[in-house]
Order: sequence, then C-alpha cells, then structure tokens
Amino acid sequence: MSPRGRRPGGVDTRAAILDAARTEFADAGYDATSMRGIARRAEVDPALLHHYFGGKPQLFAAVMDIPVDPAALIGQVMQGPREELGSALVLIFLTVWDSPSGRERFQALIRSAVTHAEATRMLREFLVREIFGRILGQLYADGPAPTDVELRAGLAASQMVGLAMMRYIVEFPAVVQASRDELAGLVGPTIQRYLVP
Amino acid sequence: MSPRGRRPGGVDTRAAILDAARTEFADAGYDATSMRGIARRAEVDPALLHHYFGGKPQLFAAVMDIPVDPAALIGQVMQGPREELGSALVLIFLTVWDSPSGRERFQALIRSAVTHAEATRMLREFLVREIFGRILGQLYADGPAPTDVELRAGLAASQMVGLAMMRYIVEFPAVVQASRDELAGLVGPTIQRYLVP
Repeated sequence: MSPRGRRPGGVDTRAAILDAARTEFADAGYDATSMRGIARRAEVDPALLHHYFGGKPQLFAAVMDIPVDPAALIGQVMQGPREELGSALVLIFLTVWDSPSGRERFQALIRSAVTHAEATRMLREFLVREIFGRILGQLYADGPAPTDVELRAGLAASQMVGLAMMRYIVEFPAVVQASRDELAGLVGPTIQRYLVP
Repeated sequence: MSPRGRRPGGVDTRAAILDAARTEFADAGYDATSMRGIARRAEVDPALLHHYFGGKPQLFAAVMDIPVDPAALIGQVMQGPREELGSALVLIFLTVWDSPSGRERFQALIRSAVTHAEATRMLREFLVREIFGRILGQLYADGPAPTDVELRAGLAASQMVGLAMMRYIVEFPAVVQASRDELAGLVGPTIQRYLVP
C-alpha cells in the first residue's frame, strides 16, 4: 500500500526493524552492529528504533526472543546488598526462564547457539558486553577489579548456562524438581565467589 | 560372505555391535538397554560384547564417541585426597576434552543432545547412573549422604557442562584462554562444595 522508501509507523515498521536487526546482528555480530546501520537497512528513521525498542540491548533481546530487558534485570540485581549478588542473580535468572514460554525460548536459544556459528557469536558478544560487562563495571566502579575479572565473569556465565541446560534441556530430575529458592541457596554462593572474590 | 546368523569375530562384528547398541540406546534409553538385548539385535554372542567393549558404560562411551572410559576416569578421580576431589574432577574432565578431537566430539555430543530428545535422555541417564551415581556411591559408602545429594550431583554436572559450553562452543575468550590449572583452581572449589558439603 505504501510507496517504496521510508515506511510510516505501525506494525510493519516494527517488523521491518526486527528483520533488519536480525540480518545485521547475524552478519556483523553484536558489537559491530549499529542502530544507524539497522535503521538504514530497514529504511526507517533511527529515532523510530529508539521509539520502539529503547536501545541496542533491548532490540537484540527482541530479536533473540529473550523475555527480559537486560538493563532492567541488571539494575534489579545491583539494587540489593553486594553480599547477596549471587543468589539474587540466580533467582532473577530462573524467574525469567522458568515460565513455560521462557523454557521454550531458552531451548530455542541454546539450539540455535550450538548449531549456528553466527548465533553463538552474537550471544557471546552480548553476554560479554551487556550482561557481565555491566555487572562488573558497576561492581568495581570505585576500586580495582581482580586481574582475572573476565575469566570470573565467564565462569559465572558458565554456571548459569549449565544450570539452565540441566533444568530446561537435559532435564536432570533433581535439578528440574528443585525450587528456585533452593537453587538460589546452593548456586548463589558459586556466582558470588566468582564475581566478588 | 558369511551365511545369515551369528557373525564371526572381527571388524564387522565390532561395527555390528556398535550399530545395534546405537539403536537400542536410542530406542530404550541408557537404563533400560541390556547387553543381552544388544547382542540379540547384533546377532552375536553376548560374550563378544564384553570381549570388545568391557561393560555397558564402555560400550555407551564408544557409541557416543566419548574419548574416555568412565569407570577408569572415576577411579582416577577417587584415588586422590577427598578434599581435592573437585579440582581433580575439573582437571581430568578438561584433559579429556581439550584435545582438538575431544573438542569436536564434545561439540557433536552437545549438538546432538540439544536437538534430539533420545540423545538427551541417553546422556541424562548415563550421567546419573555411571558418572555421578558412582562418584556419590563411593564418596558416601561409609556414612549417610546429604539428603539433597542428587540435586548436588546435578549441580556439579551443570557446572561441568556449562564450563565445556563456554570453552568449546560459545568460546568466551577468557574461558578459552585460561589454562587447565587455572580453571581447576577456580572451578574445583565449586564442584567440591556441591559434592562434599
């Protein structure tokens, strides 16, 4: 109905932005993709991207069907006391993915990450930059970080990913049956020790 | 060349046993599959299965292309002091998978586990029965185990699987670059705390 060129606002525009973002993230990875580049490919004004999605991490979450705003999640985790960071992270993470639709989305995310190199790369860059980069930046904003801080971030991620693999994919019985609080109590200290040694 | 019926020994027999085992494990899972059933399907004498592979866990490892004898691995881990169980497990696990062929096999194993339900089930039953069941059986042979011992085994598995995901599949830079000793030093205490609280 609309002539070729910049699209008017509405459902089509949102879908066009998501399509363009999917292609750009897959081609260039998370870090090298810019909101301007996505806007150019979608043939829309860059302001519309911000209007519909907020920023790049939120747009990425929409593309990957991640049911949470990463920035809001981290804000919530960092609000609590520093000595409870680990269990807060586990609890929030499980609350996001434990719903039936969360579980299916996690399965799809992991399947795509282990079978497509470009999905692996996007996810890796997103984890490094938006999740653990932000947490560690805030944790060590006022003082020196441990020298192996990136390795520690990777290990925290490894425990979270492995926990979700056992609960949502391998379905190891005792891990499926455990309550979120029980898991936060047992796994929280692991995350805590990695991130705040 | 040979008439229908029981095959003579040799390369064909070994391959026929592997084929039959692959089908039986996939159809019935790890626990419900018997060496007798595999022998029947392969049309060979059950004694030949033991001759070529040892026992059921070794035959499963051969089918799944797991480059290690699980029983021997656990024997090696349990030989060391109990307070170093966690780091010994991490070190041996990484030594098995860190070789170029180990890395490829792990990638294939995880790809198959996240995309095929029957592979997921086989791996889960194998992990429960042969790896963590045996470790915990030996650890708590002389006294009462923690009441949440199965959950703890699942969490130890979750950390190992997640570590391998980050090192071999997601390729999180700091986790790829870390030495095995560094990883044993950081992740060992996690496994230790889960298995020997």
